[in-house]
Amino acid sequence: MSEGRTELSQLGEFGLIDKIKKNIKLQNPETIFGIGDDAAVVSMDEKNLMLISTDMMVEGIHFDLSYMPIKHLGFKAVATNVSDIAAMNGFPKQITVSLALSNRFSLEAIEELYEGIKTACETYKIDLIGGDTTASMKGLIISITILGVSLPEKIVKRSTAQKGDIVCVTGDLGAAYVGLQILRREKEVYKSNPEMQPELEGKDYIIGRQLKPNARMDIIHDFAELNIIPTSMIDISDGLASELMHICTQSGVGVQIYEDKLPLDNRTLETISELNMSSTVCMLNGGEDYELLFTIKQSDYEKIKNNPEICTIGFITEKEKGLHLVSQNQQLVPLKAQGWVHF
Amino acid sequence: MSEGRTELSQLGEFGLIDKIKKNIKLQNPETIFGIGDDAAVVSMDEKNLMLISTDMMVEGIHFDLSYMPIKHLGFKAVATNVSDIAAMNGFPKQITVSLALSNRFSLEAIEELYEGIKTACETYKIDLIGGDTTASMKGLIISITILGVSLPEKIVKRSTAQKGDIVCVTGDLGAAYVGLQILRREKEVYKSNPEMQPELEGKDYIIGRQLKPNARMDIIHDFAELNIIPTSMIDISDGLASELMHICTQSGVGVQIYEDKLPLDNRTLETISELNMSSTVCMLNGGEDYELLFTIKQSDYEKIKNNPEICTIGFITEKEKGLHLVSQNQQLVPLKAQGWVHF
Repeated sequence: MSEGRTELSQLGEFGLIDKIKKNIKLQNPETIFGIGDDAAVVSMDEKNLMLISTDMMVEGIHFDLSYMPIKHLGFKAVATNVSDIAAMNGFPKQITVSLALSNRFSLEAIEELYEGIKTACETYKIDLIGGDTTASMKGLIISITILGVSLPEKIVKRSTAQKGDIVCVTGDLGAAYVGLQILRREKEVYKSNPEMQPELEGKDYIIGRQLKPNARMDIIHDFAELNIIPTSMIDISDGLASELMHICTQSGVGVQIYEDKLPLDNRTLETISELNMSSTVCMLNGGEDYELLFTIKQSDYEKIKNNPEICTIGFITEKEKGLHLVSQNQQLVPLKAQGWVHF
Repeated sequence: MSEGRTELSQLGEFGLIDKIKKNIKLQNPETIFGIGDDAAVVSMDEKNLMLISTDMMVEGIHFDLSYMPIKHLGFKAVATNVSDIAAMNGFPKQITVSLALSNRFSLEAIEELYEGIKTACETYKIDLIGGDTTASMKGLIISITILGVSLPEKIVKRSTAQKGDIVCVTGDLGAAYVGLQILRREKEVYKSNPEMQPELEGKDYIIGRQLKPNARMDIIHDFAELNIIPTSMIDISDGLASELMHICTQSGVGVQIYEDKLPLDNRTLETISELNMSSTVCMLNGGEDYELLFTIKQSDYEKIKNNPEICTIGFITEKEKGLHLVSQNQQLVPLKAQGWVHF
């Protein structure tokens, strides 16, 4: 071990990934590409490609079972992995699920967890093919690896956006983050007075977005039907600003998005007002919406303009112009990626 | 959540896996088989199959960094996964590595861990293609998923041993377990007196077997060269008795093995005598040797009999005869699987 000590918090998750990536040399011709996108790509034969992605969720870091029903956790753990396959324009096929659990968990709790996993497998038409189960020293850790398929000409990476492309997002933004704020508030209320009834009326939508997010496979099917291949794509797990940063950095481009075009659901807005938060900050930096952020060629605009689930929010510029939000009062605001900081 | 509470310790790991497996229906034609062997099998095209296996290692449960150099841990975490692919008569190709780590770990420690992972990737000719990195509430958790390839006619399952087949093991047994006892003893000595020098002279072999096990890919290459396809195979992670139990249960057969044929290295025997342990118990129930246990047709015996790395230890019987060890004094002793109990 070398003498110095560098804290992981100094690097952050992306810095650590960069460090790891730098040391890797690929040896097998079947490995098309590795670290650096939503999923890795491996060749199956001349025609088909396999997509592989993996996610680890740690109790106390990614979820809190005091307000997260364990069945929903099972669903969400699968859905977030499916979302990574969707973000490559692929179709999910199989998952493995590994669990580390403390003796706090009963068989019944684990069966509930697998109920949620099973529901997700049915929803997204995937097979649970393996896993590992072990004791943990503390809490629950879920590690899921997902396999999907696509064709070489259909795979969409983060690194291929081009100047002039239109930037699109699916669904609406910020709801999962705002839902989390409400769940945390109610937990605090409950802790100070367990007799109090939680105030969750009218919060179904935003809480549902946090507890049981949906991977946008419907959009991937739309792309196939509409004969669209996005020029780049990523799923929104860390927040719009952070994901835009990934696309722009990896594609070597800039971007301009418009504040008044960002999609916000009225139910999200209502709670944002109630909590005195900024809707733009929630949409830019609130994570876990698992919507898709993608770019298309201008010539494809006609194909998507009437799709109620797709919203155009800006366009790709040359790199030198940087990453900006055009605010409602026409000011250019530089975009900063906040993302999740675990360490 | 249902009303009763069943402790996971009542079921054990295999009981829990059985419970999970029962509820699973496979939906995709590409999924050839799922849970129940060393790896799952997915079809790539008409000719090739992909093997998938996954393992999770938890600090405090599977490893102790007070005597396990973190670089070796990285190597071992990969090697144990490679061993699962070997056990299917397959060739490993890619891995994903997910880590959860507490802020106790510095960047330098994680770089050491990846050094070991990289060495293993070079040794076994595999590519690190992805992963996830997150904070943990306590200690280090490593979850690795491995992909490998094989051909339909070459894949070897646990469930296809037949009466009359010869039972073989590679290398020698019990060393990793005995090595662990020595490491634990020295840790206790150190804890009571940190000035004391550890007594590890002559223990290199057994300690190496515990800290840096090797996946027997050499044997898989031998099989290809000798034109042998074992009739069943499993890797020895939980101990010979437990693995024999898996093969016999899944194949619907019995087995008879001979105490005087079990392969023991002299260096292991020396320490076993020193510690007043039973060599047979160490070989039957000591885990983590990562040798291969397999069965072959009698007609293949000539091909392997001169291979110094393969040892014949018994034969497969009809199911009704059960699982027995023929002791050195010719007594029939029923085999009991002890395995690892985590919960």
